[in-house]
Amino acid sequence: MTQKQMTGEQTTGERMAAEIAEQPAMVARILDEGVPRISEIADHVRAAAPRTVLLAARGTSDHAALWAKYLLEVRLGLPVGLASPSTVSVYGGKPRYDGVLAVAVSQSGASPDLVAWLDAAAAGGATTLAVTNAPDSPLAATAGLHLDLLAGPELAVAATKTFTAELVTLALLVEALADGGAPGKAGTRPEGWAELPGLLERALELEPDVDALAVRYRFAERLVAVGRGLAYPVAREAALKLMETSYLVAHAFSGADLMHGPLAMLEPGYPVLAFAPPGAGADALAPVLARLDELGADLLVVGGPRSGVPRGSARHLTLPDCREEHGVVLSAVVAQLLALHVARTKGLDPDAPRALRKVTETR
Amino acid sequence: MTQKQMTGEQTTGERMAAEIAEQPAMVARILDEGVPRISEIADHVRAAAPRTVLLAARGTSDHAALWAKYLLEVRLGLPVGLASPSTVSVYGGKPRYDGVLAVAVSQSGASPDLVAWLDAAAAGGATTLAVTNAPDSPLAATAGLHLDLLAGPELAVAATKTFTAELVTLALLVEALADGGAPGKAGTRPEGWAELPGLLERALELEPDVDALAVRYRFAERLVAVGRGLAYPVAREAALKLMETSYLVAHAFSGADLMHGPLAMLEPGYPVLAFAPPGAGADALAPVLARLDELGADLLVVGGPRSGVPRGSARHLTLPDCREEHGVVLSAVVAQLLALHVARTKGLDPDAPRALRKVTETR
Repeated sequence: MTQKQMTGEQTTGERMAAEIAEQPAMVARILDEGVPRISEIADHVRAAAPRTVLLAARGTSDHAALWAKYLLEVRLGLPVGLASPSTVSVYGGKPRYDGVLAVAVSQSGASPDLVAWLDAAAAGGATTLAVTNAPDSPLAATAGLHLDLLAGPELAVAATKTFTAELVTLALLVEALADGGAPGKAGTRPEGWAELPGLLERALELEPDVDALAVRYRFAERLVAVGRGLAYPVAREAALKLMETSYLVAHAFSGADLMHGPLAMLEPGYPVLAFAPPGAGADALAPVLARLDELGADLLVVGGPRSGVPRGSARHLTLPDCREEHGVVLSAVVAQLLALHVARTKGLDPDAPRALRKVTETR
Repeated sequence: MTQKQMTGEQTTGERMAAEIAEQPAMVARILDEGVPRISEIADHVRAAAPRTVLLAARGTSDHAALWAKYLLEVRLGLPVGLASPSTVSVYGGKPRYDGVLAVAVSQSGASPDLVAWLDAAAAGGATTLAVTNAPDSPLAATAGLHLDLLAGPELAVAATKTFTAELVTLALLVEALADGGAPGKAGTRPEGWAELPGLLERALELEPDVDALAVRYRFAERLVAVGRGLAYPVAREAALKLMETSYLVAHAFSGADLMHGPLAMLEPGYPVLAFAPPGAGADALAPVLARLDELGADLLVVGGPRSGVPRGSARHLTLPDCREEHGVVLSAVVAQLLALHVARTKGLDPDAPRALRKVTETR
């Protein structure tokens, strides 16, 4: 009897599984074919010399926007904000966005509030960029510049590969802006990025371990996801994915915000999923994980060989050694695998989450 | 036998209760004594002519910062962002903040990451402002400008009156910036604000209704708080307060973000606390509440006489009629009362939440 038969697991979520599996090839495509266009966009942005960057997005894409915000702050030092589209679409605010780069990130490019915001940003003087997987979308049509995610059609309701495409594309764009266009050499992958598809293959090889750990969450009803710095957006996305596919009441916190109040609700045995790919973020998260361990949380750490948590008191999914930005991308893929397998172990079909459609239009 | 005896309720949380009750007098003090200083700060800010505003805060104060972000976007149209202090304190990012107004909001003024961020912002060319309840704090000392919340000492671990003081002070500051200094006339309350203390008294009179409704949450383990636009920060704060004091797994979403995924986890009977003080935010939230009602959520609406939800299928706490900004402040106070009474009904002491101290210092 196989493990799957033993656990009675159904093989639902075929679409989601297939799109998770496509990601090494997709990232290779972005690196091989997408980079010249990313460099071109970077040239346009540099010419506009923005003093401020604003990003707007919803759901999964909002987590990619948050990732871009961190990278822009760290690498470029520019003031960056996540826009609240409702201040335009609901309250009729009139942006004065001279010197602003306004970026809307959306898989479908279809949400009216993002279109309204990008329109108002352009009218207010901003340089506008849409990052979508839909070159024919209203958002792409509205934007002055458009960057295609090249993820291929995404059919599963739960976004996976488009999130990874957003993480990689936005990171390459920030790198192009920071390095004065270095990633743009035609025909070669940007320096330091060539191995990412191979690293993604290795992350996908963790699937049997993820599957075995997912079984533990069969009767879990809630979970906290935590990360610090660059990995915090992945904690947010992991929580959303678990809510969407497994109906877990999953809450994400930055390690710092968790300590400012929410810690009180974590009774002993509370499931905590920590994202700690090696780097400055994991170092800053280490004291938070030690405190969680002390409080008796049930910790699963997605991270490097050394996460700062005593081996005995936590479970680990160990990522291959790599730079922090890449470790974050790998963490995102592991989170997707976990959501898929937790849904399956609960007898749910992650391709058919209740109450949701693929494209959500909010105003 | 009284209601309290019937429910076996203990009168814990005396500090929290006392500080909630102080709020009408505190707001009157801000309006009568704090306004000249707010106008003076507005004059300094206007002289600096910032092109971008960044705010940084943690926990409860972060929700007040989000409120300020909405108001600045709606009233001034400036690009506004919530800063991620870790990009400076963890990653060593070097801000280039020429033309930026950097605002740190903190009750205690003691968190090292906020001090590090404000320092780095000043070094990068920003005009810096600290909004605290602690004029002698490290944050106040670091800032170029300091605005005292005038809330008086806050002793309860769960912040209540300082949150309200932040909401009112930041709204008055934005109004002073938008109107060219109008709220500054010495000796008179700013136009349209004179009645707020009286409105707060009336919100506090809802306490018996809040108490009666709180009993329903005796065995609730989770809850979703929702708001749209200006009321969304209060949904965030309500969730935090319920986590801190009642250990409820309370999740906040903007009405728009809820539709992009988390909706799937809301099974019939899921407790939802909606903030819909009358105004554009409540209008935009109405279709979300109708959808939640359709899905069988257990809705409690804190709002105006007309919230868009059929009277029969939801419970209501009806706020006095007033402008949207003031309705948001009243909603915050009702949320505090609810957290206090849910904690009591669960036999918990909201003045002694497990695992927390009054001042949290994160790096």
